[in-house]
Amino acid sequence: MQSARRPLAFPFVSGHGETSYQFDQATAVALRHADEGNAVHDVDVDAGWTIGDKPNGGYLLATIARAAIDTTAAVEGPAHPHALAAVASYVGPPALGAAEVHSEVLRRGRGMSQVRGRLVQNGATRVEATFTLGRLRAEAEPWWGGEPAPGMAETGPDRRSPAAGPGGMHLPIMDRVDIRLDPSTAGFVSGRPAGVGELRARLSFADGRAPDPLALLYAVDALPPATFDIGGTTGWVPTLSLTAYVRALPAPGPLVVRQRAGLVEARTVDEVCEVWDSRGRLVAQATQLAAIRTA
Amino acid sequence: MQSARRPLAFPFVSGHGETSYQFDQATAVALRHADEGNAVHDVDVDAGWTIGDKPNGGYLLATIARAAIDTTAAVEGPAHPHALAAVASYVGPPALGAAEVHSEVLRRGRGMSQVRGRLVQNGATRVEATFTLGRLRAEAEPWWGGEPAPGMAETGPDRRSPAAGPGGMHLPIMDRVDIRLDPSTAGFVSGRPAGVGELRARLSFADGRAPDPLALLYAVDALPPATFDIGGTTGWVPTLSLTAYVRALPAPGPLVVRQRAGLVEARTVDEVCEVWDSRGRLVAQATQLAAIRTA
Repeated sequence: MQSARRPLAFPFVSGHGETSYQFDQATAVALRHADEGNAVHDVDVDAGWTIGDKPNGGYLLATIARAAIDTTAAVEGPAHPHALAAVASYVGPPALGAAEVHSEVLRRGRGMSQVRGRLVQNGATRVEATFTLGRLRAEAEPWWGGEPAPGMAETGPDRRSPAAGPGGMHLPIMDRVDIRLDPSTAGFVSGRPAGVGELRARLSFADGRAPDPLALLYAVDALPPATFDIGGTTGWVPTLSLTAYVRALPAPGPLVVRQRAGLVEARTVDEVCEVWDSRGRLVAQATQLAAIRTA
Repeated sequence: MQSARRPLAFPFVSGHGETSYQFDQATAVALRHADEGNAVHDVDVDAGWTIGDKPNGGYLLATIARAAIDTTAAVEGPAHPHALAAVASYVGPPALGAAEVHSEVLRRGRGMSQVRGRLVQNGATRVEATFTLGRLRAEAEPWWGGEPAPGMAETGPDRRSPAAGPGGMHLPIMDRVDIRLDPSTAGFVSGRPAGVGELRARLSFADGRAPDPLALLYAVDALPPATFDIGGTTGWVPTLSLTAYVRALPAPGPLVVRQRAGLVEARTVDEVCEVWDSRGRLVAQATQLAAIRTA
């Protein structure tokens, strides 16, 4: 399947080199200007990574992260190619098409760096994120703790989420990712939510791209709202604030993603997301606060 | 007992009016300049809210939040006096004494506003935070979910944490807050951590100030690192990234705070904090990623 993205007129800047994977194309950043830890990158808000006409928040976060990582690379110091922590505020949904990421290096350390990135359109900040960057190593092992991966029921090809949502809404992103909900948490699809507030799924890129720390920034916002498993709420559940921690380099293969709703009160809900790789290692954790309307 | 804070030479700007409570004095902000959603406030990094000579991260977050809230108040729109979500990156510990908070309103909405605040010293950002602001209402009730308050063993006055830490380190903050660890989680004090990675405590201000949404931004970072209950780690556990959600107006009375360590790996640890008020209502949630050294 073909990405709807129009190609940028300038070379990609990418930690992966130039690739033909859809996620890398969609998150590509092109350096326009850099000056002592400040940079402006051109990006393209991709029509393919959307729910209806709204870009996915994790996809936007990964795009900003690429610009932030590229900005540190222009300042002398050890390479910090991975976002270990990302905290984002979603100010408003960006329009599809051209945008800029304005980055500023707040600290360039030996082991870690911190960078603020802002996705800007027409002078207005649409998403603002701050990253703690470092380098994850393949040989790292958990020293203590780490939630074990949840049991998952069979999620064969026939369980893949379709690219059409409630009321026939088009979900272009579902052509690009292969999300297979654990059947025991998929009751909401047929109007029978389990009432637990938990969704579990296997997730992989449709074109076979392997997961990496950048992809985990998307994965933590990839599932539908866990409130779908509660029922009784209406409309969008727009993310106000998203925090993601990337804890390890993920092994190749599908990810297991669990999204859980916490407290619904005062028109907000908190959700916790955890991601395990194909070895069962906890590789990412996230929390978000989203706006919600109860029926 | 008397705060070590030297008084600011300008009037306090405060959501509570001018008060003599130590927390309000220490987090006071004084508007120096405001212009269309941008503002600079003078603040004083207080010697009383420190562990050794390092200011507490939650105290700094509350200070920045006050400046951010004050900045929205200067822009037309409904009052949004409470930080519903706060995401902060700790760039480096500020020195005690004079500092500025530079705020920028990213969105001024009807129900919520979003503001970035930066604590700056000598032109360098020390803490950067973005807030989602709104108004919590006393009549709000939980609609779904919400972790129940944990059981707490007796924590009488003799259990109050002393103002001296390991190796006799002075903890001025412990003169200002009354933290009483649940004895079953206080084994680390005598070198016998339970190995669970969980601390629980009752928390109140020593001078009787009631908890409010601002104070909850401090409360989520008030306990020692939950890794103290694991053992085998050394030195400071400096927060890199802190996320706090304030979910309800807290009732008067002591708060119950639970801090839990998640995964220790690759020289970082994630910790989850929850705060309940005296009614047992979940009023705040937080997560942080901190740097850690294993022995």
